[in-house]
Amino acid sequence: MKTTKGTEKKPRVKIIPLGGLEQIGMNITAFEYEDSIVVVDCGLSFPEDDMLGIDLVIPDITYLKENAHKVKGLVITHGHEDHIGAIPFVEKELNIPIYATKLTMGIIENKLKEHNLMKSVKRKVVRYGQYINLGCFRIEFIRTNHSIVDAAALAIYTPAGVIVHTGDFKVDYTPVFGDVIDLQRFGELGKKGVLALMCDSTNVMRPGFTPSESTVGKTFDNLFQENKDHRIIIATFASNVDRVQQIINSAYKYGRKVVIEGRSMVNIITTADELGYINIPDKTLIDIEHMKNYTDDQLVLITTGSQGETMAALSRMAASIHKKISIKPNDTVILSSNPIPGNEKSVSKIINELSMKGAKVIFQDTHVSGHACQEEIKLIYALTKPKYAIPVHGEFQHLNVHRDLAVSMGVPKENVMILSSGDVLEIGEDSAKVVGRVPAQGIFVDGLGVGDVGNIVLRDRQHLSQNGLLVVVVTLERESNQILAGPDIVSRGFVYVRESETLMEDARHVVSGALEECLMKNITDWSRMKSVIRDSLSEFLWKRTKRNPMILPIINEV
Amino acid sequence: MKTTKGTEKKPRVKIIPLGGLEQIGMNITAFEYEDSIVVVDCGLSFPEDDMLGIDLVIPDITYLKENAHKVKGLVITHGHEDHIGAIPFVEKELNIPIYATKLTMGIIENKLKEHNLMKSVKRKVVRYGQYINLGCFRIEFIRTNHSIVDAAALAIYTPAGVIVHTGDFKVDYTPVFGDVIDLQRFGELGKKGVLALMCDSTNVMRPGFTPSESTVGKTFDNLFQENKDHRIIIATFASNVDRVQQIINSAYKYGRKVVIEGRSMVNIITTADELGYINIPDKTLIDIEHMKNYTDDQLVLITTGSQGETMAALSRMAASIHKKISIKPNDTVILSSNPIPGNEKSVSKIINELSMKGAKVIFQDTHVSGHACQEEIKLIYALTKPKYAIPVHGEFQHLNVHRDLAVSMGVPKENVMILSSGDVLEIGEDSAKVVGRVPAQGIFVDGLGVGDVGNIVLRDRQHLSQNGLLVVVVTLERESNQILAGPDIVSRGFVYVRESETLMEDARHVVSGALEECLMKNITDWSRMKSVIRDSLSEFLWKRTKRNPMILPIINEV
Repeated sequence: MKTTKGTEKKPRVKIIPLGGLEQIGMNITAFEYEDSIVVVDCGLSFPEDDMLGIDLVIPDITYLKENAHKVKGLVITHGHEDHIGAIPFVEKELNIPIYATKLTMGIIENKLKEHNLMKSVKRKVVRYGQYINLGCFRIEFIRTNHSIVDAAALAIYTPAGVIVHTGDFKVDYTPVFGDVIDLQRFGELGKKGVLALMCDSTNVMRPGFTPSESTVGKTFDNLFQENKDHRIIIATFASNVDRVQQIINSAYKYGRKVVIEGRSMVNIITTADELGYINIPDKTLIDIEHMKNYTDDQLVLITTGSQGETMAALSRMAASIHKKISIKPNDTVILSSNPIPGNEKSVSKIINELSMKGAKVIFQDTHVSGHACQEEIKLIYALTKPKYAIPVHGEFQHLNVHRDLAVSMGVPKENVMILSSGDVLEIGEDSAKVVGRVPAQGIFVDGLGVGDVGNIVLRDRQHLSQNGLLVVVVTLERESNQILAGPDIVSRGFVYVRESETLMEDARHVVSGALEECLMKNITDWSRMKSVIRDSLSEFLWKRTKRNPMILPIINEV
Repeated sequence: MKTTKGTEKKPRVKIIPLGGLEQIGMNITAFEYEDSIVVVDCGLSFPEDDMLGIDLVIPDITYLKENAHKVKGLVITHGHEDHIGAIPFVEKELNIPIYATKLTMGIIENKLKEHNLMKSVKRKVVRYGQYINLGCFRIEFIRTNHSIVDAAALAIYTPAGVIVHTGDFKVDYTPVFGDVIDLQRFGELGKKGVLALMCDSTNVMRPGFTPSESTVGKTFDNLFQENKDHRIIIATFASNVDRVQQIINSAYKYGRKVVIEGRSMVNIITTADELGYINIPDKTLIDIEHMKNYTDDQLVLITTGSQGETMAALSRMAASIHKKISIKPNDTVILSSNPIPGNEKSVSKIINELSMKGAKVIFQDTHVSGHACQEEIKLIYALTKPKYAIPVHGEFQHLNVHRDLAVSMGVPKENVMILSSGDVLEIGEDSAKVVGRVPAQGIFVDGLGVGDVGNIVLRDRQHLSQNGLLVVVVTLERESNQILAGPDIVSRGFVYVRESETLMEDARHVVSGALEECLMKNITDWSRMKSVIRDSLSEFLWKRTKRNPMILPIINEV
């Protein structure tokens, strides 16, 4: 398009992260040009500590629903929950075709089956190097390495230029399964010209390189050697198929049978086995019921729960509530994982519980990260030489450090775009700027409810959790407003009542006094009466206890 | 005492840890022989995540109260909260004389003043090398190094032998204030014979040595050099006087004025200054009100809140609710601390908030621990050569690793005593064994209430926090049991009612149905009626929402 002045207006594409920035998790990004939208990833996140009673947080897809006619497809980089977990919720509302590599699709299909969505949702398995055309966009899947097999980066060909999205990645020159990340392709793309690089920021604080996954195999060999006479229990992430492969390799080498325990791990390993992503020698796997036929030195148990998740298999073993496995003094328990930030305490609790049962617990140097450290990130910049850098997958502190790294790799500072979830970035050859905002706060899932718990409900839960509540019930006569029954006070979570009888008795007097005052002053409006009760009782309790329970006055009329 | 068989019965002393083992914090240990009890340390701990609404946890001193006539004194190793925090609570019940080094006593006195206990509680300042006699016990204070000045180890001379208690310690050959830990004295004691060593386990998982506090000073110098044009804000532990000294040294060197902010830090630094434990050059400290007279490059702010504590000064600055200081893009914020386990998330939150305001945040390599690593612990074993090892100050996982370390240093495995809080260890030259248990669970402090919140109240708070509550109110006629009003349902923290009107309407119908069923079946007993209401409503809600709120049926009668 030529303007009258002879300058050409360059096309611009919109990039809209709908989650995944302020906190890691819930990755989902929309790419939009004219009548086409492509969505990359569709993750969920787990609740923060202050999201009381919330089970999951899923992205707000209001914007996608409003533009549903434009949405051409959902492209998934890999099979971790923070990239695929919200798919069932989103598919129920949007029903868009899914594109992913084979194992990733296998894991997604497990979810779709659970939600009865297999028939309605179109799916296409994509190979590395393959292109798919979605409206104005063409998308190429590029091989990467990560802590789950079959991870892909994306080259997104847009009318504005090529955008490279790394997904979650690391550079593993000696991966356990498959090949090293396709660095040549990154280089080739860079040579041709990359408009923007959207690169994983998870480990951007860490200097150096992340070690290869295969280094953990050597550690396992050593640990199996050192713990020859012990039963070995190894907890790791359910989705880390390569890790499980290496444990199986060591088990086979040392003549041990393997039991896999924990629902999510059984699911993923079954899928990986069916699709040929794991190599389990014959007669190596045994059923948990058959453990009794073997001695301790003939067994390895691979299990979930390495993050101290309360309901996972390892936690149940540690707490002696696992139905089939009891921890014994002859056990060596290996936590092959690092605590995800926020889980340190629960991991520590499990280590203590296991130690108390006499088990030897090993949790250091038995894990490598799945994310690129600084030198690997620099390598991707060196190969792609992007005009713009859009750091992704990180909290603000990570994005900030990533900015400096991008600048050190030659990206002009003003070309590093630090986005917040909901920002609408318009980007093209000649400019990049945030031009608007769309809704992008997480939606809370509590039980079957999606979005029916908001900030008011959470604030109430917070209040209740701190000091409990007092319910004040009084029954009035309709005509005269005279007290027919009560005031009665019922408390929960406030104070152990039997030990505080006088306090509760005094509280009743305070309420009676407040009611009498209302009647004397001819206050008969219930909401005013309730607020008088609330205020006087609250003041009394604060003076006596320095606590501030929720007070719930209930007035009946007969 | 000779027995008839001519063998001599060796005297045995009791050691009773009343806290500080299962979880770090709340250190308090009783030493008992015949009519004498000496208590070492008297700490509090902060609530675990599941102790909802609890402010503090203090030790259960039932055993000390029952034996109050025997208790000769309270000996304090150093001035950290987990060693002195419960003193006011305990002194109110027991009133026992306190023995501590000068700065430790200064910090304790700040507490006693707040609680109006200065007149009633006897205190004696003890010098390193000095002995005090308490009943059958003689106690010697030995110089150590730690992250607070004036820390002491104790040699406790008992009729059963000498027990060495390290307190919290590290080996610092180049301490900022005072001298290196009195290793010679540990050696001398060892030569004469040490019955038992009670040694700090905090860092027993870490190989090597903890670096000297003075290494942090060099880091500060470098950071001041690199951030010449920036305002510098440094957050650290309020009680780490040496750290503050080093910041002041760098500030003085680079010509900056120092502002100290945060109540607890102001208190401790004032005390340290009065007692001569910190050296502040004239005109270096300025009042926060005078900051406006200086440019950014002339200022350093030292503040509390390095652990992300919500109410501390740094959190208030990060959240823009500090009255006097706003974070600016030209600020360099240094977190001179490592997150204490469990605080990782809140520290991370602060870093994100500060980054979002444009501040540069530095939090790596700006802290050293105050606790001994493996090689330092081994050094103490090598010097004292104890017959028994009683690892202290650690969770079970630490104590377990400490056991292996003690064994590697020549203590027979059966002579390593792994205790739980409440265990009564009887120890002498010829034997050591746990002979009983005393109460030692933490007592919850909530507001002014000490011990009135127990497990039932906490369970209710937990329940309320997860799914909120529904109050069901119904008014019956006394004689006929007919429903006069209701059932009405009030909910809090359950669901956003406006969006769930039909749900609440259906719930009312369920309750009405349940009540009718009661009347039909002639169930008039209120507690049975309540449980019918609770069960039917609970079942209904679970089916509809997969949630399990607390249900509180209230029946009135008029």
